[in-house]
Amino acid sequence: MLHVGVTGYGTIGKRVADAVAVQPDMTVAGVAKTTPNFEAERAHELGYPVHAVLGERLPDFEDAGIPVAGDLDDLVAASDVVVDCTPAGVGAQNRAVYEAHDTPALYQGGEDADDVDASFNARANYEAIAESDAEHVRVVSCNTTGLSRVLAPLDEAYGVEKARATLVRRGGDPGQTDRGPINDILPDPVTVPSHHGPDVNTVLPDVAIDTMGVTVPATLMHLHTVNVTFETETDAEAVKETLGNEARVFVVPEYARVEGPAHLKEYAQDAGRPRGDVWENCVWEASVSVEGRDCYFFQAIHQESDVVPENVDAIRALCTDVDAAESVARTNAAIGLDFGDSESERTPAGGDGARISADD
Amino acid sequence: MLHVGVTGYGTIGKRVADAVAVQPDMTVAGVAKTTPNFEAERAHELGYPVHAVLGERLPDFEDAGIPVAGDLDDLVAASDVVVDCTPAGVGAQNRAVYEAHDTPALYQGGEDADDVDASFNARANYEAIAESDAEHVRVVSCNTTGLSRVLAPLDEAYGVEKARATLVRRGGDPGQTDRGPINDILPDPVTVPSHHGPDVNTVLPDVAIDTMGVTVPATLMHLHTVNVTFETETDAEAVKETLGNEARVFVVPEYARVEGPAHLKEYAQDAGRPRGDVWENCVWEASVSVEGRDCYFFQAIHQESDVVPENVDAIRALCTDVDAAESVARTNAAIGLDFGDSESERTPAGGDGARISADD
Repeated sequence: MLHVGVTGYGTIGKRVADAVAVQPDMTVAGVAKTTPNFEAERAHELGYPVHAVLGERLPDFEDAGIPVAGDLDDLVAASDVVVDCTPAGVGAQNRAVYEAHDTPALYQGGEDADDVDASFNARANYEAIAESDAEHVRVVSCNTTGLSRVLAPLDEAYGVEKARATLVRRGGDPGQTDRGPINDILPDPVTVPSHHGPDVNTVLPDVAIDTMGVTVPATLMHLHTVNVTFETETDAEAVKETLGNEARVFVVPEYARVEGPAHLKEYAQDAGRPRGDVWENCVWEASVSVEGRDCYFFQAIHQESDVVPENVDAIRALCTDVDAAESVARTNAAIGLDFGDSESERTPAGGDGARISADD
Repeated sequence: MLHVGVTGYGTIGKRVADAVAVQPDMTVAGVAKTTPNFEAERAHELGYPVHAVLGERLPDFEDAGIPVAGDLDDLVAASDVVVDCTPAGVGAQNRAVYEAHDTPALYQGGEDADDVDASFNARANYEAIAESDAEHVRVVSCNTTGLSRVLAPLDEAYGVEKARATLVRRGGDPGQTDRGPINDILPDPVTVPSHHGPDVNTVLPDVAIDTMGVTVPATLMHLHTVNVTFETETDAEAVKETLGNEARVFVVPEYARVEGPAHLKEYAQDAGRPRGDVWENCVWEASVSVEGRDCYFFQAIHQESDVVPENVDAIRALCTDVDAAESVARTNAAIGLDFGDSESERTPAGGDGARISADD
């Protein structure tokens, strides 16, 4: 049983802790937080030992009625591995604490790739990380995760000559009430490529990709327009099948009448998923188009949760002998990542022309 | 002096009337509107003879204190040419009225290309339309106009092997209070290509282009991410110069610190432009990137006004012997379309490294 510590208990940290807690081979050693708030209170209610990142803040937690198990140093001492989910740049500062304990650690995509031993995406490079000596590993960001999950299988199946994506990014998460824009559509960054293309190359070094970022007044999910020029010719049905066979890609069937991220979130909420999380890439079946070697599709990416199962797999890659396929299957089964896994949901990607065409 | 009638006096119609009114070779014969409202009142104040599209509605205008010069039939009879700015689909119905008077007419991009003799964009095919027998001509939509204005010169300069654009569309105009989405990012349409690519081919038949549409909660302008794979190699400076030399492309200089559509609208308002209109394509200089034969840039398109100067030119193409260059120059000068025309504004596209780099 792996004892997993979680540093930083915000949007990502609380989700990672919950995902770890339901794994058969892991337990939450504790979580560390800077300040007591509603999230810290909830962590205590869930039975996660709560730690104050800074020892001097310990009384603040006690004042808030939240018992504290120790400081960050105590948490690391109690952990076989730490998942650092602190804001961008803080993870790099915390690395010294983890190193002092000789404890392997995972970091999030906000950290600089140069501040870690390696970057990770389960679909792109699980085995390479598992076989390496890397002990301080960064799980790439939500958008990079979303791109890597589709580009890896497409490159294997058809060869990617060049991928181009426009990332229409939500302005902030629902809880980030200080973010914008209001009523605007911003080039972000205005320079090309955005950092996402090069970031994909930290886990898929051989895939040529250019990305452009746009930020808009929405909070639910990112939306990508993806173009891939293949090295070989194929057709849309084949691409739908390739993507539909992926463990973390949900090919959204036409009959579901899912118009956008709001419907996807409703779908996840109706399915009883925690926090309405959408861990999968959601690729619209109706959008998958191939003409010659040029393929296009839309996909939605839930910025709050798509990296969560990746963090769980990264723990196994660093600390166990479990292989990629087994880890992904175990993680997905434990958290309930299963959109598109039932026969009725999977068939549209693989065929079932009756639903989407009169030509049956 | 050409007598120009304007049918439909909403977002586009009122702007076309004002643009016609300031041309040295045109006058507004009158405008026709279905119902009396604040816009009809203003038309009367501006001295445009107001017509009721439907004769039976004439009393409604009189009740609102707006004198009426006649019905649609009277307006067409008083006009050498009519610009139909009615909602999508209505123009096709009105065509019979214009034909009954043997009066040439222009229509807007919402009409089906099959319902007109030809489609028009001043930069793409002014001369072809002028030399043709076409009398019922459609000015392509705001997004198609925006794409055509950059693809025509880029194709001439470098050859377009393939263009790909994601159109991040505003949900509605500021006055369209019944539109959405709220807090969502919608594939729109979810199928690929969107109609814009084929629509570009109505004025630039030989340019290969694929487009994808996204709709977001914003009202000010559309934002395009554009990728063009050229037939020949070039560099970013050359592309900036090519676009900077275009009469209706504003290469937004880096020093202006224009972050998005809201800043562009502020810029136009501060310049004293009517309604804060931005008639030009606005291409961010900082975004223009070329690597090998792949070029990328962002451009903003003002959906309420970019087709307005095109309608004025289309009038000349249909009714006069004025050539394209003279018409565009005359139209631009009359309405004050001049962003990027002063030395200080144009130089960043052509050079002026001092402002944008320390390497001078």
